[in-house]
Parts: sequence; C-alpha cells; structure tokens
Amino acid sequence: MVVLGIDPGLATMGWGVVESAGSRVRLVEAGAVITTPDRTLPQRLKEIYQGTKALLEKYAPDEIAFEELFFAKNITTGIAVGHARGCALCACAEYGKPLYEYTPMQIKQSITGFGKADKHQMQQMVRLLLKLEDIIRPDDAADAVAAALTHVQAGRMKEQYLMK
Amino acid sequence: MVVLGIDPGLATMGWGVVESAGSRVRLVEAGAVITTPDRTLPQRLKEIYQGTKALLEKYAPDEIAFEELFFAKNITTGIAVGHARGCALCACAEYGKPLYEYTPMQIKQSITGFGKADKHQMQQMVRLLLKLEDIIRPDDAADAVAAALTHVQAGRMKEQYLMK
Repeated sequence: MVVLGIDPGLATMGWGVVESAGSRVRLVEAGAVITTPDRTLPQRLKEIYQGTKALLEKYAPDEIAFEELFFAKNITTGIAVGHARGCALCACAEYGKPLYEYTPMQIKQSITGFGKADKHQMQQMVRLLLKLEDIIRPDDAADAVAAALTHVQAGRMKEQYLMK
Repeated sequence: MVVLGIDPGLATMGWGVVESAGSRVRLVEAGAVITTPDRTLPQRLKEIYQGTKALLEKYAPDEIAFEELFFAKNITTGIAVGHARGCALCACAEYGKPLYEYTPMQIKQSITGFGKADKHQMQQMVRLLLKLEDIIRPDDAADAVAAALTHVQAGRMKEQYLMK
C-alpha cells in the first residue's frame, strides 16, 4: 500500500510517500511544495492545489493521511493554513481515494510513544523507523512522512477518516 | 464589464453576476452553491471548487469581487469558511482574471452609505439599485451581489486587489 502524508501549509506544504508491505515500510520520497510571499494569495493557493494534484498523479497513493489543522500559534497563520489545507483537500477529494487525518499529538504518540515529543525526537524516530542515514528535510516533509507512518501503523483502526 | 461577486462559505457560497455599462448596472443572475453536512468536508470543498469553476465558465466575468473573511462568530466556523474560501479563490486564480476583495464594512458603506447597515437595509438597497421587484434570496446571494456592486462603484479606486 502506498500512503501519501501531507502536512498542510501556505508557505510550505510538506509531503511524504511511504510504501508498506506487511510489517515492512519504506520511504519512496519526501519533499515540500513551497510558495513564496511575492506571489498573491490566490496564486499561492493555485500552486498548492496543482502541486497536490501533481503528487497524486506521480505517486498514485492508495490512501492519504493529513495532519490535522492546529491553531496554536495565531489566528492569521490559522486562516492562511486553512485556505491552503482546503485546496490540498479539494485536490485529494477529486482524486477520490480514502483520506484520513491525525492530530499532531496522535502522530507524536504513534511515532515516538510520547504525545509531547519535540521536533528533534520526531526527526530521529522517523529516520530510525525508515532506516535512513540522515533525517528528512525540511521539517514539514518529515512531519508529512510521520503522518503517513502513523496511518500505516493505525492499520485497521482507521476511524479518523475524512472521506471514504 | 461583467463582475462576479462571491460571498464564501462552506454550507452556502453566495454568488451574483452584474453587468455594468457606464453608469448603468443590471443583475444578470444570482444564486448559491449549497453543500450539505451529510457529505464529508473534502467532498464539500470539491463541490465549492467545481461550482465556482462552473460559474466562471458560464458567466465569463471580467473581474471578480470577494467578500473578505470575517471571523466574528467563532473559530470553528472561521476554519470551515477558510477552507471553502481557499477553494473558491483557487478556482478563480486558475481562471486568471483580476480578483478583488472588500470587507463587510466597505460593502455596507458602499451600498447603503452606512458601514453598520443591517441585513434588511442591505437587501432593500440592493433591490433598489438594481430596480428589482423582490429582494434577492438567499441572503448570501444578496451579499455576493452587494460585493459585485461595491466593485462596480469602486471604479478606478481598486486598491484592494488580491491578484492582478
């Protein structure tokens, strides 16, 4: 099963593709869709939407795992992420495969066994789980891979689905 | 000039098309894209995106005016509207014509001369400006028409653009 993980954002949308077979899981690829503030908001949203469509076409995932929107920082960031997340979700809805979402705490719990793990611990555990030499960069790509891994580990307990 | 006004929302996205020539302006059509809670969030976002694309194709507006996101009620509503607004903006960005946005207060000021006008006053002024027999329903469609009229009245003072 191929799983695409997405960590939505306007400036940086992290993504990661993993492939699982039985208890084995390997990293296919990870990266980020970057949009820059010199473009207007609608142009950046278009880049997020079209970037997501391109990932779906290239990697043909069977299922997709989103990191749930988390508004800790401030409302302005929250609105921007909400706009971008809406566009990524829309592209995935058009793709039509099942979508799931996990909170940051669920992802940390699943990857490190500890819901309040820090970025460094997460990065190292993702590296170890996937037997990589180096950590995944940027952070948002590692977070997206962590969402995909959480989904793989969730197995049949997939009650968090957004769309069947 | 044909202007499409959009009042974004997840459950109801109001829209209105007006055509202006010199000082005259007429209503072409108004309505709402409705999505229901029995669909999942990604499916509803897809309906908003595809509904917006269908409007752009049908009415071929020269310019588009959005009502700016307004978070008075609560953050949960705000996130949902943010998702939906992102999808409508994305569809318009792909369309490629200039986008503008106006705050609710700018729209009320422009239509009624009073930034704190109520819904009833807005409805009646939109009806009078467009020489209609009845008010426009639903409210969100009337709000979208008001955004389009505000844009027409703004004339050359279009500094609120989102995308050139």
